[in-house]
Amino acid sequence: MADLTPLFHPNSVAIVGASNKPDKIGNVIVRNVIDCGFSGKIYPINPKEPKIAGLPCYPSLVEVPDKIDLAIITVPAKACLDVMEDCGKTNIKHVIVITAGFKEVGPEGLELEKKLLFICKKYGIRMVGPNCVGIMDTHTPLNATFAVGFPLQGDIAFISQSGAMLVSIMDWSKTIGLGFSRVFSLGNKADLNEADFINAIADDPLSKVILCYIEDVHNGKHFLEVVSKAARKKPVIILKSGTSQAGAQAASSHTGALAGSDLAYETAFTQAGIVRARTMTELFDLATCFSYQPLPKGDRVAIVTNAGGPGIVASDTIENTGLSMARFEKETLDALRAYLPTEANIYNPVDVIGDAKADRYSFALEAVLKDPYVDSVVVMVCPTAVTDPEAIAEEVIRLHQKYPEKPILTSYIGGVSLAKGAQRLSQAKIPVFTFPEPAIQAIAGMVNYTRRIDSGAEGEAIRFDDVDRNKVKAIFYDVIRDRRSVLLGSEAAAVAEAYKISAAPVRLATSPDEAVNLSLEMGYPVVLKVASPKIMHKTDVGGVKIGLNNEQEVRDAFIEIMENVQRYLPNVIPYGIEISKMMPKGTELIVGMTRDMQFGPLIAFGLGGIYVNLLKDVSFRLARGITHGEIAAMIAETKAATLLRGYRGDKPADMLSIIDMVARAAQLILDFEEISEMDINPVFAYPDGYSALDIKITIEI
Amino acid sequence: MADLTPLFHPNSVAIVGASNKPDKIGNVIVRNVIDCGFSGKIYPINPKEPKIAGLPCYPSLVEVPDKIDLAIITVPAKACLDVMEDCGKTNIKHVIVITAGFKEVGPEGLELEKKLLFICKKYGIRMVGPNCVGIMDTHTPLNATFAVGFPLQGDIAFISQSGAMLVSIMDWSKTIGLGFSRVFSLGNKADLNEADFINAIADDPLSKVILCYIEDVHNGKHFLEVVSKAARKKPVIILKSGTSQAGAQAASSHTGALAGSDLAYETAFTQAGIVRARTMTELFDLATCFSYQPLPKGDRVAIVTNAGGPGIVASDTIENTGLSMARFEKETLDALRAYLPTEANIYNPVDVIGDAKADRYSFALEAVLKDPYVDSVVVMVCPTAVTDPEAIAEEVIRLHQKYPEKPILTSYIGGVSLAKGAQRLSQAKIPVFTFPEPAIQAIAGMVNYTRRIDSGAEGEAIRFDDVDRNKVKAIFYDVIRDRRSVLLGSEAAAVAEAYKISAAPVRLATSPDEAVNLSLEMGYPVVLKVASPKIMHKTDVGGVKIGLNNEQEVRDAFIEIMENVQRYLPNVIPYGIEISKMMPKGTELIVGMTRDMQFGPLIAFGLGGIYVNLLKDVSFRLARGITHGEIAAMIAETKAATLLRGYRGDKPADMLSIIDMVARAAQLILDFEEISEMDINPVFAYPDGYSALDIKITIEI
Repeated sequence: MADLTPLFHPNSVAIVGASNKPDKIGNVIVRNVIDCGFSGKIYPINPKEPKIAGLPCYPSLVEVPDKIDLAIITVPAKACLDVMEDCGKTNIKHVIVITAGFKEVGPEGLELEKKLLFICKKYGIRMVGPNCVGIMDTHTPLNATFAVGFPLQGDIAFISQSGAMLVSIMDWSKTIGLGFSRVFSLGNKADLNEADFINAIADDPLSKVILCYIEDVHNGKHFLEVVSKAARKKPVIILKSGTSQAGAQAASSHTGALAGSDLAYETAFTQAGIVRARTMTELFDLATCFSYQPLPKGDRVAIVTNAGGPGIVASDTIENTGLSMARFEKETLDALRAYLPTEANIYNPVDVIGDAKADRYSFALEAVLKDPYVDSVVVMVCPTAVTDPEAIAEEVIRLHQKYPEKPILTSYIGGVSLAKGAQRLSQAKIPVFTFPEPAIQAIAGMVNYTRRIDSGAEGEAIRFDDVDRNKVKAIFYDVIRDRRSVLLGSEAAAVAEAYKISAAPVRLATSPDEAVNLSLEMGYPVVLKVASPKIMHKTDVGGVKIGLNNEQEVRDAFIEIMENVQRYLPNVIPYGIEISKMMPKGTELIVGMTRDMQFGPLIAFGLGGIYVNLLKDVSFRLARGITHGEIAAMIAETKAATLLRGYRGDKPADMLSIIDMVARAAQLILDFEEISEMDINPVFAYPDGYSALDIKITIEI
Repeated sequence: MADLTPLFHPNSVAIVGASNKPDKIGNVIVRNVIDCGFSGKIYPINPKEPKIAGLPCYPSLVEVPDKIDLAIITVPAKACLDVMEDCGKTNIKHVIVITAGFKEVGPEGLELEKKLLFICKKYGIRMVGPNCVGIMDTHTPLNATFAVGFPLQGDIAFISQSGAMLVSIMDWSKTIGLGFSRVFSLGNKADLNEADFINAIADDPLSKVILCYIEDVHNGKHFLEVVSKAARKKPVIILKSGTSQAGAQAASSHTGALAGSDLAYETAFTQAGIVRARTMTELFDLATCFSYQPLPKGDRVAIVTNAGGPGIVASDTIENTGLSMARFEKETLDALRAYLPTEANIYNPVDVIGDAKADRYSFALEAVLKDPYVDSVVVMVCPTAVTDPEAIAEEVIRLHQKYPEKPILTSYIGGVSLAKGAQRLSQAKIPVFTFPEPAIQAIAGMVNYTRRIDSGAEGEAIRFDDVDRNKVKAIFYDVIRDRRSVLLGSEAAAVAEAYKISAAPVRLATSPDEAVNLSLEMGYPVVLKVASPKIMHKTDVGGVKIGLNNEQEVRDAFIEIMENVQRYLPNVIPYGIEISKMMPKGTELIVGMTRDMQFGPLIAFGLGGIYVNLLKDVSFRLARGITHGEIAAMIAETKAATLLRGYRGDKPADMLSIIDMVARAAQLILDFEEISEMDINPVFAYPDGYSALDIKITIEI
């Protein structure tokens, strides 16, 4: 991918549309570039001004004598095209278009945006925006935005699809002392998008965490490839809005964004190892903790508190977020018992009780930090007459330096009396919360990230070579020639078999003799069903006969079905009659699919049978790149898994064969984009294999 | 219930254990009573001091010449008994025991606490504590605690089982300007508990909201009665900790509290109309909004924002919390269209765009406040170059006064640049949040409270008079005489029939002839099952025969079963053989129960059959006082409801008969506390009734 370094570390910057009027964006940007301490050359461009903000001004880019690394454009939308041409001619490769009035205002604007992008492509220019606030790098330093003020230096990179949110957050971040490394406003992301920036930050040693607010993703496949790699290098935390129906409406009316279904985003984010924040508060709580503290090695949390009640609240949250209460080793308990007063609680949550001063906190905290069965610690402080919140803060800071490998978070429950201590902690990069729950939720986010990255590292994408693609194409060809989109049962079974999915035999018979021969071939008992795309409810027209055990029954059933259909639907000429083997009953599963515009096909697995839509016991994964481990995990998420493991004394099902089937179904829908719908329901799972009974496939050409 | 007025409005207060030493609690309390501005008489009690804090000091309560309304005791635990005797003798009826060292320290302390309570009962004294921080009333004013400082005056009453949390919250509340009416520390609640205080606050005109932090409830029945009534007068918001396994352990090790199961608390809270806060943040967010704003009339929320992105986040939250995006009437849209710039969004969320000043906010806010299809409004502000957050705040405040019946909440996303505006809003009792999500969650809490109170108001507790309690007693008597605890199927069916639950006929036959007669009586086909409490797996010993259609089959089956049992279990002599009628298959339901130590029996309803434990589609209600509406609601919560309404073309089931059955089962488990377990699974539901097939009842005497 393209090297975006000149965007963040340009040696020279031009501002096209620079102005001397203080209320103009073109003035704010020039001042921002100067005020942030940018050390390179700055070229204001404006044909009407000789000087801007004390700097010599040039009438156009082509008049500038030096090489320009980065151009920032703020001229009106229509004028942007000419300026972009100038950029191309003067060999400027990186451009930020601040100007609004493009895609977001309707068809005319979209047309203009396409033209602008075309010029970029022609010259190999990489563009941020249009319709954006710009970008910042606190380490360069560079403030190429029209936002008021410049954030504190830090190691959080923030990418925002909403310019207003970016500006708000920069303002807010200072009140809590949160620092940033790089900040990006995506705007309409006509060229560069979140994936490009995430990729660029992944290798930036000055950025420890990648934070995103996005409303949509343009190229799901590309996004996933980039983010999956980035997430293995550093945490990627995303707040994706427009998830709900109401939100999606707002998204499309505001940014022209086409929201994918949330199911696909949820699945894609999980598979890519993204930490998904549910609220803005959570986004920044997570950012703070990932930025300030090391990753916990496991899920065992210790609590040190001077009050019982808040300790209980913390314990509840540990349980509810899927973390575990650390259980201390004997040495820890002995040490705590020897040092703490008898009224104290030496088990987790450690209660150093209300009269604890800093020394007691310090002892207890060091004891639990030393304990090998503790992965992270939350220190809680309630104000009492003797509490010294600042001294406690100093001890926490000292012990964090001594044991830097274990995350420490704090909950200072109080106001004025704790404020100075809390401030001291925050300055020393110990996350400090008022109430304990958000601290523990942040630990849960960190633990889930670690788990996900650890588990996702193993496993190769499954790919079968023993499938017969030509056979499937041949079947689809026949279906298309027949001007159908829904496959007959026998065709669908043949497609499955071509991918070595073990389908219960289904064959089409066009005469009683053929029906008898096919029945003999597959073995009794058999079922006969009329085969016609025009007959939706086969049972209602007498088109189904089950449990047929011999030649005579098959022959009679064939004729009876034909007569029934003739009587009920005299104008329909069936293709014939499908003979299928009755399979012994097994655990009923469903394997299905859905397609997402951004992320491609998703494979579904769950409890099958007639109550599928009622029970909704279905789990999803993106078909692309699916691994053995992912399929095992998706099965484990369902209640069907309990049945497959052997429920109430039943024999366990052959799990490997089911994983194989899901993988093959995933490959089938990946290989054939024309499959718009597929449902295999039920699949009967047995102790020694499975059988796919009723396969429905619809294609769209 | 007792009148607790002297606790909050005493004319005279005595502090027993008062001290001149500033680090003693006995000194802090005297100073707190004086410093808060208490206007009544104050009597420090200490045999060793002539004066304390400038007030004349008395050697004991009996020496005080005047009547004392409230005594606050801080002497050591063992000395408390004598002091309480003095209270009794001097006719003091209200006492706060601050002293610790009672139940919470173990068996000895518990003994002491019982003695203390006994003295209270003897004299009719009502006691707060022991082991508590005390109580406060900001309107009296009275600060009868040893907490540092006195809260701001307001209309939130706060009850806390954790003293440390109470002190922390008082400290913290000042930083956000939150005011309280009354504050209670429960301590060990030996006498007065949360129910008593909730009852007292329910009728206090100066308290608008009741806020509780509790770890357990002592008398579930009493609690429910009191709180159900209180919740209909004003919102009762509770954070109940110790909900998780980990939390419950912490609860019992810290406060000696015996935590009930969370299921019972969850159910009880819902039925009582309690607003349950999940986190401390949510507890105070809800308190603020309930205190500051009117209740919304419905769930339709309008958003007014100056930025698209945050508007999308808000819309998502509205959807995710079960609220609705308001859809404006034509007049509103016309007005917005006429006034706002063309780039603005006039649909909800209303986007007044980045260059909006206060006038544009004001116009848009008034337009949506006037709209009859809007129930509440969230105003969001992001800082831009032209934003005037203080002027916007003034407009919000003005319009709230003009339209006081619709709640307005705000989200000021930013820091320093918005701080003054936010402060102004908070002073004027407009809730102000940084991010939009908590604002909308608070609206959801308010809407849910309103819904719950509205829906719970209707409906009487169901009580059947047509049940035969003596019949049930007679059956239980036989079971007990037989030294059993599990009822035979025929006995359980008879119990059900005594409560007019329509059970499938099951009768015990002790001979082949009797089996034939009973079969004839109930009609074929029938099932025969061996009847013996010693045979758990009847099928395994050949003890079950199904689908018997005539006399000969029944006779043969009877003998065959007896022979099978004799062969497999030669030492077991069965009671006989149970004949049951085979019922046509219907929708499979389960009706069951569980008992909670605090809240009594809970009735369960859900999808029945062999997968009950897997599907976990079960809903619970407290059996006590259950109404027709509650049962309908509990059924509606399950997936079984979808089947009962007629799934995929099936006929709907007879819902009224099922509600009747659940009500009768609830009454049965209420009437007979000795029923420790009951499972009716399956119940077959039909279009014209139901049949309870397999009834299992266990009793514990």
